[in-house]
Amino acid sequence: MRFVSDHEPIRTGAQYIDSLRNRGLRVFVLGERVHEPVDHPLIRPSIHAVAETYELARREPELATAINGEGQRVNRFLHIARSPHDLVQQNEMQRKLGQRTGTCFQRCVGMDALNALHSVTHEIDLAHGTPYHARLLEFLAMVQARNLVIGGAMTDVKGDRSKAPGEQHDPDLFVRVVRETDEGVVIRGAKAHQTGCINSHWLIVMPTQRLRPADAEYAIVGALPVDAPGITYVYGRQSCDTRSLEDSGLDTGNPRYGGQEALVVFDDVFIPHERIFMKGETDYAGMLVERFTGYHRRSYVCKSGVGDVLIGAAAQIAEYNGAATASHVRDKLVEMTHLNETIYATGIAASHNARELGSGVWLPDDMLANVCKHHVTRFPYELARLAQDLAGGLVVTLPSGADFESEEVGPILRKYLATSPTVDVEHRFRMLRLIENMTMGRNAVGYLTESLHGAGSPQAQRIQIARAAKLDEKKAMARRIAGIDEVREDEPARPKAQRPRED
Amino acid sequence: MRFVSDHEPIRTGAQYIDSLRNRGLRVFVLGERVHEPVDHPLIRPSIHAVAETYELARREPELATAINGEGQRVNRFLHIARSPHDLVQQNEMQRKLGQRTGTCFQRCVGMDALNALHSVTHEIDLAHGTPYHARLLEFLAMVQARNLVIGGAMTDVKGDRSKAPGEQHDPDLFVRVVRETDEGVVIRGAKAHQTGCINSHWLIVMPTQRLRPADAEYAIVGALPVDAPGITYVYGRQSCDTRSLEDSGLDTGNPRYGGQEALVVFDDVFIPHERIFMKGETDYAGMLVERFTGYHRRSYVCKSGVGDVLIGAAAQIAEYNGAATASHVRDKLVEMTHLNETIYATGIAASHNARELGSGVWLPDDMLANVCKHHVTRFPYELARLAQDLAGGLVVTLPSGADFESEEVGPILRKYLATSPTVDVEHRFRMLRLIENMTMGRNAVGYLTESLHGAGSPQAQRIQIARAAKLDEKKAMARRIAGIDEVREDEPARPKAQRPRED
Amino acid sequence: MRFVSDHEPIRTGAQYIDSLRNRGLRVFVLGERVHEPVDHPLIRPSIHAVAETYELARREPELATAINGEGQRVNRFLHIARSPHDLVQQNEMQRKLGQRTGTCFQRCVGMDALNALHSVTHEIDLAHGTPYHARLLEFLAMVQARNLVIGGAMTDVKGDRSKAPGEQHDPDLFVRVVRETDEGVVIRGAKAHQTGCINSHWLIVMPTQRLRPADAEYAIVGALPVDAPGITYVYGRQSCDTRSLEDSGLDTGNPRYGGQEALVVFDDVFIPHERIFMKGETDYAGMLVERFTGYHRRSYVCKSGVGDVLIGAAAQIAEYNGAATASHVRDKLVEMTHLNETIYATGIAASHNARELGSGVWLPDDMLANVCKHHVTRFPYELARLAQDLAGGLVVTLPSGADFESEEVGPILRKYLATSPTVDVEHRFRMLRLIENMTMGRNAVGYLTESLHGAGSPQAQRIQIARAAKLDEKKAMARRIAGIDEVREDEPARPKAQRPRED
Amino acid sequence: MRFVSDHEPIRTGAQYIDSLRNRGLRVFVLGERVHEPVDHPLIRPSIHAVAETYELARREPELATAINGEGQRVNRFLHIARSPHDLVQQNEMQRKLGQRTGTCFQRCVGMDALNALHSVTHEIDLAHGTPYHARLLEFLAMVQARNLVIGGAMTDVKGDRSKAPGEQHDPDLFVRVVRETDEGVVIRGAKAHQTGCINSHWLIVMPTQRLRPADAEYAIVGALPVDAPGITYVYGRQSCDTRSLEDSGLDTGNPRYGGQEALVVFDDVFIPHERIFMKGETDYAGMLVERFTGYHRRSYVCKSGVGDVLIGAAAQIAEYNGAATASHVRDKLVEMTHLNETIYATGIAASHNARELGSGVWLPDDMLANVCKHHVTRFPYELARLAQDLAGGLVVTLPSGADFESEEVGPILRKYLATSPTVDVEHRFRMLRLIENMTMGRNAVGYLTESLHGAGSPQAQRIQIARAAKLDEKKAMARRIAGIDEVREDEPARPKAQRPRED
Repeated sequence: MRFVSDHEPIRTGAQYIDSLRNRGLRVFVLGERVHEPVDHPLIRPSIHAVAETYELARREPELATAINGEGQRVNRFLHIARSPHDLVQQNEMQRKLGQRTGTCFQRCVGMDALNALHSVTHEIDLAHGTPYHARLLEFLAMVQARNLVIGGAMTDVKGDRSKAPGEQHDPDLFVRVVRETDEGVVIRGAKAHQTGCINSHWLIVMPTQRLRPADAEYAIVGALPVDAPGITYVYGRQSCDTRSLEDSGLDTGNPRYGGQEALVVFDDVFIPHERIFMKGETDYAGMLVERFTGYHRRSYVCKSGVGDVLIGAAAQIAEYNGAATASHVRDKLVEMTHLNETIYATGIAASHNARELGSGVWLPDDMLANVCKHHVTRFPYELARLAQDLAGGLVVTLPSGADFESEEVGPILRKYLATSPTVDVEHRFRMLRLIENMTMGRNAVGYLTESLHGAGSPQAQRIQIARAAKLDEKKAMARRIAGIDEVREDEPARPKAQRPRED
Repeated sequence: MRFVSDHEPIRTGAQYIDSLRNRGLRVFVLGERVHEPVDHPLIRPSIHAVAETYELARREPELATAINGEGQRVNRFLHIARSPHDLVQQNEMQRKLGQRTGTCFQRCVGMDALNALHSVTHEIDLAHGTPYHARLLEFLAMVQARNLVIGGAMTDVKGDRSKAPGEQHDPDLFVRVVRETDEGVVIRGAKAHQTGCINSHWLIVMPTQRLRPADAEYAIVGALPVDAPGITYVYGRQSCDTRSLEDSGLDTGNPRYGGQEALVVFDDVFIPHERIFMKGETDYAGMLVERFTGYHRRSYVCKSGVGDVLIGAAAQIAEYNGAATASHVRDKLVEMTHLNETIYATGIAASHNARELGSGVWLPDDMLANVCKHHVTRFPYELARLAQDLAGGLVVTLPSGADFESEEVGPILRKYLATSPTVDVEHRFRMLRLIENMTMGRNAVGYLTESLHGAGSPQAQRIQIARAAKLDEKKAMARRIAGIDEVREDEPARPKAQRPRED
Repeated sequence: MRFVSDHEPIRTGAQYIDSLRNRGLRVFVLGERVHEPVDHPLIRPSIHAVAETYELARREPELATAINGEGQRVNRFLHIARSPHDLVQQNEMQRKLGQRTGTCFQRCVGMDALNALHSVTHEIDLAHGTPYHARLLEFLAMVQARNLVIGGAMTDVKGDRSKAPGEQHDPDLFVRVVRETDEGVVIRGAKAHQTGCINSHWLIVMPTQRLRPADAEYAIVGALPVDAPGITYVYGRQSCDTRSLEDSGLDTGNPRYGGQEALVVFDDVFIPHERIFMKGETDYAGMLVERFTGYHRRSYVCKSGVGDVLIGAAAQIAEYNGAATASHVRDKLVEMTHLNETIYATGIAASHNARELGSGVWLPDDMLANVCKHHVTRFPYELARLAQDLAGGLVVTLPSGADFESEEVGPILRKYLATSPTVDVEHRFRMLRLIENMTMGRNAVGYLTESLHGAGSPQAQRIQIARAAKLDEKKAMARRIAGIDEVREDEPARPKAQRPRED
Repeated sequence: MRFVSDHEPIRTGAQYIDSLRNRGLRVFVLGERVHEPVDHPLIRPSIHAVAETYELARREPELATAINGEGQRVNRFLHIARSPHDLVQQNEMQRKLGQRTGTCFQRCVGMDALNALHSVTHEIDLAHGTPYHARLLEFLAMVQARNLVIGGAMTDVKGDRSKAPGEQHDPDLFVRVVRETDEGVVIRGAKAHQTGCINSHWLIVMPTQRLRPADAEYAIVGALPVDAPGITYVYGRQSCDTRSLEDSGLDTGNPRYGGQEALVVFDDVFIPHERIFMKGETDYAGMLVERFTGYHRRSYVCKSGVGDVLIGAAAQIAEYNGAATASHVRDKLVEMTHLNETIYATGIAASHNARELGSGVWLPDDMLANVCKHHVTRFPYELARLAQDLAGGLVVTLPSGADFESEEVGPILRKYLATSPTVDVEHRFRMLRLIENMTMGRNAVGYLTESLHGAGSPQAQRIQIARAAKLDEKKAMARRIAGIDEVREDEPARPKAQRPRED
């Protein structure tokens, strides 16, 4: 990585964008190789969303940076949480960035991976005498110093869902070590729907699920630069993605910001020892996944920030339409708010109820993190439905921006899409496009489907909620109250049965 | 209309498509005028969906045709319902066409408009001595004989929702008569999101809401050929619409079928007297809207046919993924089915519970029609969410068809998107694209948003349900049972109060 | 049975009540044997509810009676459905009786059992040459002639749910034949929560689930008089049941009507051959259960009638409270109505979509019957919640009727529970008690919990919906549309890919 | 109050119960005056629930006591929150007490009233120079020293809901000052459904809603002993309340604990100046209500503790029934847990996000407190439905405890209600009764209906959520992202429109 040799930290969004240039990545978009992703109009909005994380750190350092263990101010996305407050501040930052971008800003996976690995490497080392934790800290110090973007590569392509990694017809369907050398390991495989991978500087590869002892080759964690030889990126196609390529900017809805997910293929890519944080310790793969999801499932608080934008858009379009005071409109905005704040509240509750682990990092409450994410798999869909309800049918039948800007048909549209002389028709047009963008267009990918599957699909949360439910304790509570288990208080359970006579 | 002079009825889908050629319509798509919509790849799928209605009539005449009052077999979309069975058969045909096309086939508005006008013109004539009913029957005979497609143009652009037609800052925001001549009337205005308008032969213009006596100029119903001078069509932009223009057909999801909604602008368009079915009778505008929605809200049974496709796609992708036997997967398919069948059941219940009107046409039960439509505003969104759940995140991060077909990156994708040797990777690719198409792509427009707003937005149904709820009768039932209103039975309400002693 | 020797049919509610006297049943209520159930104030309301079915047949014979195959007018509860219309009329009668009684009127199990057995006995006879169908018809003729009440006894006590009948630790946990004689069989076991059993004249015993070939002794269907020697009835305790025993009638909520469910224990009870309709044909047990539930699950349309009463009560209490015009109050009444009508619509849709079986009886659509019942397991709970919302907290903190009638504290209550001079305080009191009765009191048993479990618990419907879902057909629909399966139309799927140039 | 002269603090549950004796309260239950409520079997369970708060303070002082501003350890129910941690600990204590009692322990209203008055009296004094805050602190010191139970009396009977206090037909329908004397004021009126009033030592009377300037006589806040002359208590009737009076204890479900709500009538009751904390400052009535509900709506975290018991009971009964391993059973327990933890999480989030007020007390976040309570109005009903689903129909058809204990019929029940030799039939019986108790019996009053209406009915939360939704800020976020409002970053929103050519 060209950038790796630089020693000046990235300080601004513009510097960040510059840092992505000239890396020679092998990126495919819509069937063609893209030589400079930074300038590709389809990719650019996703870069702006990441750049906004740098800008926020400048504008609001209390929110988006933190003081690390060595007393240095670092970007919060690179900070190891040393208190519940640190975790809550992650959530506050996530909500704020959701509000600023209306989409996915792509840095949470890396943040959550670093925090999860902090304790897991510590525990592997304790058990196995390995040097992973120190390596991780060294890596961390480097990326903090240079202020880099870290992507976390966890989700394998997985092949047949009913089979374990080693049982697949093709062993590469989960990323694995194909050979070891004196200097390190060589991995092969692919990670699916990798958020922000092309916009990152480093990737941390991690296993995606619990592993059996027989799956040792799959138990690999390591960091590698995004431009390491052998990596191919195939851009995920998003709904309405090519609108960014059209002349009129009006139809994108959110012209500036977007998300990014790509397939990352590792065709025999080398990782040196000093960047390896797990190798073969299959019994820690499950712990890593659980700790990572402990952080990452409550990181979906970001969607409450995106939800704020959607609620705002719904309120705004209702006002443009002349419907803002109807009681059912106000009630739907209340319902949207109620659902949206539930996401936020359950997320920060998980962070507040964190516990400290042996390495000194704090881990959010597992039950509440799963409860948060589980709401995220449901509520954005209902918010989207309600936003479309308030928008009116025009949200999906609006003529194109090219029509709106055309000399021939534009004036007709300005006449007939007007609602009131006080409302600029173009504003109404743009607001409808934003709602389309968030509910079925480009950012619906992140706001809806990625809310469903990111950090684990709904069933994954249900399994985790079942594990954390402590049903045996609850059964005992019920038995005690029902009079089945002995109550040890000295007080009799009820006074004598006959009804007292009053005189 | 060139076609109007032909006297041969349309018999096949291919003939139907031919009938649409060379009409010289003024159509704008993506900012450009389209000279032959039939050949435009973005429009063509919507034409195929209508063509399928002709093909179904050939393949299953019992289902998709009917015997009219004169003993002639006519397309069911042009048939006046003479029994509850006729209405139920409309629903069965709608479900079947939804199953065949996976989208909106665009002919229900016309069918429902003809049926609604049958009774309303009859009643206006009875009250006012007008000749509307006979005119309608004559028009009906002509379109039945030629087997034409009728579009119904109801929804005005509406301007400021808090104001009546005559109160808008621009009087043209509702379609109105701007002048009368000896031969007929001239109308001006625009109808928004007009389903299948360009694919129709005739349009029936109707008012969109109850009117005040002061709004007489807005009380106009008439039929006019789609190519009448003065009409402009501006194509509604759909999510992912331009995928139809791309070289690879893989990304459209549903390559053959699509919906169509456009803005129709009437710039002083003439309607002759013999095609006018209401003019100035403001007190019948509300009746027309209510009767039309009585038919149209239960016409949304079509969405249960589309839902069948989505359930099938979800079941199929789960199987491709190797997840078909997981208990949560099966349970989600059950939930989808339960919701989907509720749409169907409430719709046909409305049709079964129809009542005959004075003109001899049958009208579905108003309460149940509204209940049906109200479910349609909610359940497809939940079905879509569950389908995305079963599909996995790949439904929104899948690389493009061009990547899949590329020599460079295609083999990589075939390797890593494989699930099992028994599953063709391209089949999995196509099935994911179909689910994307139906849940956030092109046909999500019809399956979701149009389900929400078509035939009236949710609040419109709630108002109608409130009207039909007969709360006074229900309050009386409650009072009688609570012992407030006198019970006239001779039997005492309860035996004497003391508890009987048994010996 | 004393009454069996009478040959005059029962014509009125009063005659029905008389017919229940002096039968010497062995009935236990609250730990004591009750010698004349008819006069027991706790039982009496349930008898009134059945009596209302006789009264309705007098008042509205078109609704509550039918003409049987022999041209005789019989009570509809004893009628074999000879058309979809017959099934729909059952639903209409059920809704009406729900509206009249606000509770369970207890006759549907018998009606549905007779209809199910009509075809099942026919099919067993065809396969095995047995005489069951003729026996059933003879029994039917007798009960029609005397106009009797038939209870259906299906639900066994079931023991350990994870084990089959023959695997239980006690073989009697499912009703079974313990010995055969020349004249018939002797059965032992118990049927749980038997609706209206004590208020019936005859019981029809049936197996409760599919049986394995090894379970032949459990495959027994037969009719026996309610007062057959060896039967014990233990009354099910209902919430607030003893309020019927209190001096003040004000606290019962529904002073006149109630439901009845009891445990029926068969301690070696004899059934003669001529009343046996299945014996040992284990492979027909599953068919009987499925057919029975095909009728019975859509019989829960009765709950829409009960729901009408609850909606009326909610609307009435809102009016008494001075809150009837608040927009959220009206909206909640709409939501209640929407849910309630969905139960009705899905039920009658199942009846309308019936099919004729070999015996000549019509069977409702299985899918829709299950969809109906599945809604019934959810919606009454939401209606109850909304009714309590509209009632206000007083619905559960209201002082007793005795307080209200007391000289000392009554005037205080009349002063402080008044809402407006135009509202009688006692009316408000009674309406609150009715809502309490239906949402957590005596009739909540029937309206809520029995809605959940009667005719099969929710999971039973889900299994049946899965069976009827035809997923293979739906997968094929999806594959065809996705372009996976060949489309056999001659039409190309899309015109050539390049975008047409307009000039 | 006899007890007021004692100076020894209450230290144990037993001492607390003693403290309630011989107070000569005027209490009516079921139409009769009760001379010693402590010994009344219908009342006693509610006293035990309060006693448990004293016992918890002994067993877990860290949880249920706190150090006040003077460094004294006091019961947490009497503690003024001096940090977010204090508020969170209230929630933890509430959940624990819900788990211990399965019902309402009645002390939250007092706790929340004291905390709300701390800041409100401070602010009134600042504005008006009144001495309320010092009086409150003195009162607080006294009740802390003696360790007393405080009830908060807020909810007026309210008469016609469409009218303000001064507009009612009877001015006493809201509690008001009827005259002033040199020593204090005399109040008249009634407070409805007063939780734990008879089990308290002092009541704090407060207005129930915003007041107009004309309503000065209604703006009264003061503390008075429960046995003040002129007070009458009329016990609220609960579902199944008289089961506590029956010989068999088996049918109560929760034999030891219960809730209490009564109508409290003030028939010209005197409050001395030193116990008055607001008098006539109408503009602070709304502030008091909002602050009180800010605390009280998140106090409903207690219901997650009660929910724990219900989840435990559902898991236990499924196990007794032999159904614990069925996938749908496990999934329903997950759903119950997910909903229950949402209540907890939103509540503690409100506490964590507290802000400090001028008086030094901390106030929970208003939005999140309302979100918490709003979930409480919905989720317990769904938990109850699911618990009944898992329990099976027997939960409402179980014979009585007297039957179970009867020599005659008991053995029959023990035979037929058995599920497996390893399950004690009586345990199954008791567990079913507990579920009945919590879902439609005595504690359903608190768990369901009081969850709906306590601390404000659902619509009250929606109004408050609307107020806190900051829609203007959200509309601005949406406008910025849609490109309507100027974005001030120097970066262009998108690179030049044409698609870059890669070579």
